[in-house]
Amino acid sequence: MSGGHTLAAFDTELAALRTAIDRMGELVERQVGLALDSLAGPDADLAGEVLKGDAEIDRLEAEVEAMTVRLLALRQPMAKDLREIVAALKIASNLERMGDFAGSVAKRAVTLATLPAAPPVASLIRMGRMVQAMIGDMRRAYTEQDADLATSVRDRDGEVDAAYTALFREFLTYMMETPAQISGGTHLLFAAKSIERIGDHVTNVAENISFLVKGRLPSDERRKEDLSSYAVAPPRDGA
Amino acid sequence: MSGGHTLAAFDTELAALRTAIDRMGELVERQVGLALDSLAGPDADLAGEVLKGDAEIDRLEAEVEAMTVRLLALRQPMAKDLREIVAALKIASNLERMGDFAGSVAKRAVTLATLPAAPPVASLIRMGRMVQAMIGDMRRAYTEQDADLATSVRDRDGEVDAAYTALFREFLTYMMETPAQISGGTHLLFAAKSIERIGDHVTNVAENISFLVKGRLPSDERRKEDLSSYAVAPPRDGA
Repeated sequence: MSGGHTLAAFDTELAALRTAIDRMGELVERQVGLALDSLAGPDADLAGEVLKGDAEIDRLEAEVEAMTVRLLALRQPMAKDLREIVAALKIASNLERMGDFAGSVAKRAVTLATLPAAPPVASLIRMGRMVQAMIGDMRRAYTEQDADLATSVRDRDGEVDAAYTALFREFLTYMMETPAQISGGTHLLFAAKSIERIGDHVTNVAENISFLVKGRLPSDERRKEDLSSYAVAPPRDGA
Repeated sequence: MSGGHTLAAFDTELAALRTAIDRMGELVERQVGLALDSLAGPDADLAGEVLKGDAEIDRLEAEVEAMTVRLLALRQPMAKDLREIVAALKIASNLERMGDFAGSVAKRAVTLATLPAAPPVASLIRMGRMVQAMIGDMRRAYTEQDADLATSVRDRDGEVDAAYTALFREFLTYMMETPAQISGGTHLLFAAKSIERIGDHVTNVAENISFLVKGRLPSDERRKEDLSSYAVAPPRDGA
């Protein structure tokens, strides 16, 4: 893995770095899953656990950063080793953000639990599970250094963006027809946005995996299919 | 600046890195300002310019990344030089995200321009100008390597979060009372969220500046005052 590196100590440190990254990915995948469960409830207690769980992800990111700085300073890595260390730094930062967004989703669940009623969340949860599955494959692409799998994960983000845009219209229409649930609908819209952003970070990580394996990013620029910013509710809306 | 480094070439490359970062900051500050102007209109043409302008920020981030990798590989920097290079990598990534969020705000402006009416944006623009001013001071903290200024910028993010939470309640109430403007209100809420997130990234950059100058992060953990996730509209909402 270290390009025929001769220093056993270096390989050991690189392995520790990979382990820390994989542990972060494991926690993020878990946090996203629990955040979705807390939203589906809505379950404020479970959401509380998710919020508590984020600290460990932040701690691991700081640990990864310390490891990378030490590796860069003491080992003067070259070529693939250097790419891997730089990629680890960026992957950790993306994983930390994904953890934050899982927390954002959990916060919305806490609020939804206080409301007498909320819009149906089925399609939102479905979109969330798509992203959760992408995280699982992203983790596999990292541990197996599989650039093709990483690229396929990246390409799936388009489906997430499309699902989010459809969801945005759905909730907007729902709020138009059920003004009493504007609070709930708005919080669900933000939860959906957080999930869509987690998908974007999965995409960033996937591109970093391609970079560390191949030394270059996937050739074709990825398509951005989140059109929700341009979505408005049906005609009567402007009335 | 390079800790008594003897290699003139290294200092030249480090200077080029700083210049690229500062140029990114300059563009981001401009993009955020224009995005707010496009929202205040709303001005779809101006918003379109903002969306076009993001490409240059992305290009600069890629350039910064290439520079840092080259510096790490060829110069084996130590101590403060190494910190500065690692910080540059992270600052560039935060600036790139800020540029994306300016684009998100501009997209909302495009949509608002298509609506016959939209909620008043005055308080949203006010919050945006707070963030814009923070970006200006953040840039000065970076070029002058002023850790105290960086810390004061970081601390101002609490005001932004508080303003965002107030704004969230305001818009929620507005949509309750004016269901015909739920689309406009929702897009403004997302624009507000993007601005609040830009403030978070300014905070990250400020912490990276403290790190590169002092070699450690500001001691006291920063307070997170965005409580909007827990905001609901007045009682009648649940009705």
